Amino acid sequence: MPTGYVSEAVIRRLPSYYRHLGVLAREGVAQISSQELGNRMQLTASQIRQDINCFGGFGRQGYGYHVQSLREHIGHILGVDQVHQMIIVGSGNIGRAVARSDSFRSDGFQTIALFDCDPEKIGKNVDGLIVQDLESLQGFLKTNKVDIAVIAVPLVSAQTIVNNLLSYGVKGFWNFAPVDLQLPDDASVVNVHLDEGLEILSFRLLQQQ
Amino acid sequence: MPTGYVSEAVIRRLPSYYRHLGVLAREGVAQISSQELGNRMQLTASQIRQDINCFGGFGRQGYGYHVQSLREHIGHILGVDQVHQMIIVGSGNIGRAVARSDSFRSDGFQTIALFDCDPEKIGKNVDGLIVQDLESLQGFLKTNKVDIAVIAVPLVSAQTIVNNLLSYGVKGFWNFAPVDLQLPDDASVVNVHLDEGLEILSFRLLQQQ
Repeated sequence: MPTGYVSEAVIRRLPSYYRHLGVLAREGVAQISSQELGNRMQLTASQIRQDINCFGGFGRQGYGYHVQSLREHIGHILGVDQVHQMIIVGSGNIGRAVARSDSFRSDGFQTIALFDCDPEKIGKNVDGLIVQDLESLQGFLKTNKVDIAVIAVPLVSAQTIVNNLLSYGVKGFWNFAPVDLQLPDDASVVNVHLDEGLEILSFRLLQQQ
Repeated sequence: MPTGYVSEAVIRRLPSYYRHLGVLAREGVAQISSQELGNRMQLTASQIRQDINCFGGFGRQGYGYHVQSLREHIGHILGVDQVHQMIIVGSGNIGRAVARSDSFRSDGFQTIALFDCDPEKIGKNVDGLIVQDLESLQGFLKTNKVDIAVIAVPLVSAQTIVNNLLSYGVKGFWNFAPVDLQLPDDASVVNVHLDEGLEILSFRLLQQQ
C-alpha cells in the first residue's frame, strides 16, 4: 500500500475526490486542473495539489490531472475495486433501505444476506434477499466469508451481535445503532448516527436565529 | 444563547453526551462522576469536565453531575426541546426510511409532508403520510412553516430543489444526496453521504490486512 503516510484529514477527503471525479468522468471531462477541481470541491488549488501529491503525484505541470486514471487510483486506495461481501443484521427501516440501495453495488459492496429475529420479518423478500432467522447467523458465518456487517438493530442488542460476529472473524462494521461499539484493534467501524446529525442541524439553526 | 464560546469539537460531541445521558437516565442513574461518564464515552475525566465547563459548569466537586438536569441542559443547547417541522423530498428507500423512523419524533422533529415526482409513488401512504406531488411543493411552502427539508432525491435534482426551498425561506437541510449543496451563509446543511462512509470502512479494512 502506498498510503502509509496519508493523513487522516486527507483520508476523509478521499471519498469526496472519488465522487467528484466520477461526476467529471460521466460528464465526459478527460483532464482537469487543480484550480477547476478545487472550485468543484470547495478547496483551494494548492490544497488539491498537496492532497494528490500525498497519494502518488499524478498530473503534470500545465496539463492537470487525467480524470479517469486519478479516479481509478483513488478507488484502488479506497479498496472499492475489490469485492466486499456484506450482510445486514436487522431488517427494519434502515436495514431494508440499505438492502434495497443499488448505489453501493457498483463499488463492489455486495449484500449476500439479511437477518432478523422478528418472526413477522423472517422469510420476507427484500429486493431479492430472503430475511433469514438471526438464529442461523452462526451457521451462515461458518460457511460464508463476510467482510462487512451492517448493524441495523436496536441499541440493546447491537454489542451482543457484534461480539458474535467478531468471534467468527468479521472485521468491518457499518453501524447504524445509536451506540459506541467496543471493538478490538484489528476491527473497524464507521458509525452512521442519524439522530446525532439531525441534532447538530438543530443546533446550527438555533445559532442562526 | 450561552454557547457562543463552545468550540466546534465540543459541539460535535454534544449529541453523544445527550445520547449517553439518555441511556443513563433510562437505567435509573441519577448522578454520575466525570470518571464514570468518561468511561462510557471513551473520553478522559478531565476532557468531560472541560467540555461540561464549556457549556455552563454543572456538577459539584465530589458529587458528580445530575444526569437528568445535564441532559435537559444539553438538549436545550441542541434545540431538541423545540419542535422542528420537517418535510422529506424524495420517497425512495432513504426518504421512506426517514419517514418511518420514530426515533426523531421524541426529539421534536416532526415530519409533516413527503414529496416525490414519480407518479407511481404519489398518493402512496408511508407510515401515515400521503406522498404528495412535487409540483405542489411551492403551494405547501406558502402555507406551512418548514424548518428542515430532508433531501432524499437523486444527485441531479438536489440543488434545483434546494434552491426552490431556499426561496421559500427553508434554512435547514439534511442532505442524503451525494452532492455538496451550494447554500447561502444563513442556511445550514448536515450531509449523510452513506457511500462515503462505506468507502472509508473499505479503506480501513485494507489498511488492516
